[in-house]
Amino acid sequence: MKENNDHPKALEIYLNLRKEIQHYQEITGIAHWDMMTMAPKAGKALHSEALGTLSTEAFKRSISKEMEEVLEALMEKGTFETLDRKYQRSVEKDYKGLQRFRKIPEKEYREYVVLTSKAQNVWEEARENNDFQLFQPYLEKIIDFNRRAAELFGYEEHPYNALLDHYEEGMTVKELDDIFSVLKKEIIKLLQTIQESSVKPLKKYDNLELSVEKQKILSRRVLEMIGYDFSAGRLDESVHPFTIGLNPKDVRLTTRYRKDFFKMALYGTIHEGGHGMYEQNIPMELFGTSAGSAASTGIHESQSRFWENVIGRSEEFWIGIIDEFKEIFGEEAKEVTLEEMVPYVNIVEPSLIRVEADELTYSLHIILRYELEKDLLTKKISVAELPEKWNAKMQEMMGLLPENDRVGVLQDVHWSGGMIGYFPTYALGNIYSAQLAETMEKDLPDYRDLVKNRDFEPIKQWMVEKVHSRGSLLTAKELLKEITGSALTSEPYIRYLTEKYRRIYKFSGNKAE
Amino acid sequence: MKENNDHPKALEIYLNLRKEIQHYQEITGIAHWDMMTMAPKAGKALHSEALGTLSTEAFKRSISKEMEEVLEALMEKGTFETLDRKYQRSVEKDYKGLQRFRKIPEKEYREYVVLTSKAQNVWEEARENNDFQLFQPYLEKIIDFNRRAAELFGYEEHPYNALLDHYEEGMTVKELDDIFSVLKKEIIKLLQTIQESSVKPLKKYDNLELSVEKQKILSRRVLEMIGYDFSAGRLDESVHPFTIGLNPKDVRLTTRYRKDFFKMALYGTIHEGGHGMYEQNIPMELFGTSAGSAASTGIHESQSRFWENVIGRSEEFWIGIIDEFKEIFGEEAKEVTLEEMVPYVNIVEPSLIRVEADELTYSLHIILRYELEKDLLTKKISVAELPEKWNAKMQEMMGLLPENDRVGVLQDVHWSGGMIGYFPTYALGNIYSAQLAETMEKDLPDYRDLVKNRDFEPIKQWMVEKVHSRGSLLTAKELLKEITGSALTSEPYIRYLTEKYRRIYKFSGNKAE
Repeated sequence: MKENNDHPKALEIYLNLRKEIQHYQEITGIAHWDMMTMAPKAGKALHSEALGTLSTEAFKRSISKEMEEVLEALMEKGTFETLDRKYQRSVEKDYKGLQRFRKIPEKEYREYVVLTSKAQNVWEEARENNDFQLFQPYLEKIIDFNRRAAELFGYEEHPYNALLDHYEEGMTVKELDDIFSVLKKEIIKLLQTIQESSVKPLKKYDNLELSVEKQKILSRRVLEMIGYDFSAGRLDESVHPFTIGLNPKDVRLTTRYRKDFFKMALYGTIHEGGHGMYEQNIPMELFGTSAGSAASTGIHESQSRFWENVIGRSEEFWIGIIDEFKEIFGEEAKEVTLEEMVPYVNIVEPSLIRVEADELTYSLHIILRYELEKDLLTKKISVAELPEKWNAKMQEMMGLLPENDRVGVLQDVHWSGGMIGYFPTYALGNIYSAQLAETMEKDLPDYRDLVKNRDFEPIKQWMVEKVHSRGSLLTAKELLKEITGSALTSEPYIRYLTEKYRRIYKFSGNKAE
Repeated sequence: MKENNDHPKALEIYLNLRKEIQHYQEITGIAHWDMMTMAPKAGKALHSEALGTLSTEAFKRSISKEMEEVLEALMEKGTFETLDRKYQRSVEKDYKGLQRFRKIPEKEYREYVVLTSKAQNVWEEARENNDFQLFQPYLEKIIDFNRRAAELFGYEEHPYNALLDHYEEGMTVKELDDIFSVLKKEIIKLLQTIQESSVKPLKKYDNLELSVEKQKILSRRVLEMIGYDFSAGRLDESVHPFTIGLNPKDVRLTTRYRKDFFKMALYGTIHEGGHGMYEQNIPMELFGTSAGSAASTGIHESQSRFWENVIGRSEEFWIGIIDEFKEIFGEEAKEVTLEEMVPYVNIVEPSLIRVEADELTYSLHIILRYELEKDLLTKKISVAELPEKWNAKMQEMMGLLPENDRVGVLQDVHWSGGMIGYFPTYALGNIYSAQLAETMEKDLPDYRDLVKNRDFEPIKQWMVEKVHSRGSLLTAKELLKEITGSALTSEPYIRYLTEKYRRIYKFSGNKAE
């Protein structure tokens, strides 16, 4: 009898706690968005302090004794089984997060929060002054903490698994090593073939100057076209593009514009549009539970990459929009042709900076970071050696040597914020996107015609049904298996890349003609 | 010994509590601004719920037992005297607010919060359908609550004083009766003289169509000109214009534009600019204490009215900006002349709607509401009689009979939100603005030339030094006395109005020529 009487009450308490946390996240989310887009310069320092206070309040609630007790009550045998699937998943996820946090002694956790907050400022300064040694002691402490955290969290086989699990539940070094080693080899092979090809796409559109006001119109039209809902969202500008889902009815995107670099705004916008449509289409029914979020960081990235690359860089996409593109820019784009545009947006050119990388070499940037993170964690390399190791790998994979650490090991913000184990999700996004696309093509064999005709609705609806509507009721692994019938594999992605570049660089199979 | 050891600690606890409250207010302020300006339509309902939760959290902190205890410790004899003036004032204000709240039984307060929240929706519906009876039971309960609250708060002489005190500390019915009766008589006399004048300003600029984009440029330029700081603020659009001071480094304004009504945007913007400059110039040293806010609602309004009317509608102002005005609008404003513009922005024409009233008759709208509020509170009239009483007063003062309640008793949102005692501060703002202007003219005898030359800095600095820099270290009454050397009096305002309209409507003294 006890359980039966208690469980509706426990569920009610749990849902009220979750609602309160959601309310904090929603309001602090607005304030965060505001700081990145709207807030006047002078006011930001004070907002940042205020935001710190309220974020702490939200976090306190998620790890409170009250939360722990109610989660334990709901996880009891005899109770858990009676819960709706979405509540089961929400309880599981929250309890896992709470237990993870509990394993870190409070004092160490507090010190780490202070450390990463300081480290981000130091990293900024170090990057600006090209001074790795300034950042080194901070990164050493961050790696030490993560090494210790992995031990405290516990893991099987490899400490990196404990960190990875935070962003990509259940993902392991073993799987990644298998996948990434194949991918690395194949990408490097493709890269060579491309570099040996006699076809060299024209770069003359690098000289196009397209007015920012018209680029804004294009960005908006493309988002409307692919199915992003402006009645439940916005598109603004920020230094670093991002998507923020405040609730499924308010999902905001940002992008950035440069008159002489239209690819940046266009593909940045479509990328965030992919993230945004995911957030907009997680069912309201899951809202407020922990099942009402994306399946994983990698799956989130699969949505942005799918729309940005699989769709947005395809020939069919440009067949569909070229007339409108030329109409919007008028005189400014009068020389643009479909025949030149498609190779232009797919130019392959190894470069030093991840965020500026082409589609093909992007994953190499990720694999490089993944290899270094693992080696740092297992002490195979030290932080002091990092710049040298970075440069060696860059040379090996891309044939390029960074002229300084600013364009090398100091380029990314992630490590300074303590995000170790995050990078692999970027490459997973690429791999997932191709696996999903191959399955989609079985359900929508004419999908390329749909793209040509700008009829994106069936494609979007396929993603909504298969991916978005599930929230995180399944893990990425379960979701992928359910949708594609197979486990993670890089084969579809390699097929997709080979096919794309074969057409553009005119080689057969993996060989230049 | 005890006091000496405890008081720094008590002060520290107090300031930490205040800081936390400020942080909540700042972040919820951003979310509120966002709802009014930026949030996509679909997301607002959820934001509103989240905002409710966090506002409650902030309020809870301001009336907590912990806050009460620390305030009491700081107010103890032997401690209070040692506090810095700003902390004394902050403690006094907070304690007064807390005691005020404590006097209402919690159950009644909760019911009232629910009541006013519902009443605002009902009022909207009632106004839309011109159905006072729908709103009547809600307004009855609101008046009942305020009557009871006045008794619980306690007062001398008149229950309305207890409500008034909340917006305008220390203001009394006796003072307002004296001031308003003179003002009412003089305005009605001036109105008659104006209506009998043979001068009838041309209304042909009512037909001007000025593009919204250019009106935005004008609004921005005028704000920059008078000294509003855009590096610590923004100007956006909203249905109802407002100013929100998140902190002194981030004070945001909104306005609204209509192609065929440029006066609305221009004067709306200058009005909010006056509020905004006040908020921007309250010293950082007072920030986070309760002394770091405006002296009173009426003093706040004096700043908006000063810039909107005393400056913005003056001939000198238009001498200064007419060329730029014509330059911005080009062809659209080619027929505009200084000689026609000044009378045009000062047209006197009695009307039914307060927010559309001209400068002269505006105060009559306020006096009407003040008289009704007093009579409702003392049961001299009932809520049921309100429409009839409203219409009678409108006829008496303005010579106009509202054709329905929508343009009569149902026009304002204030009562539905429980704001009884607020209206008088609008008229006080007018009166204060003229008292301040007369004193300013003694310090800056050439201030009219400064305005002609668009050299607003000395005028702004006078206001900063005399008003803004004091925060609420003094009450409105104390501040006015200190600055002008005199108590509240409507004489300067009557002199200002007479002088202004004498020039425009060309009569001598109070008589038409």
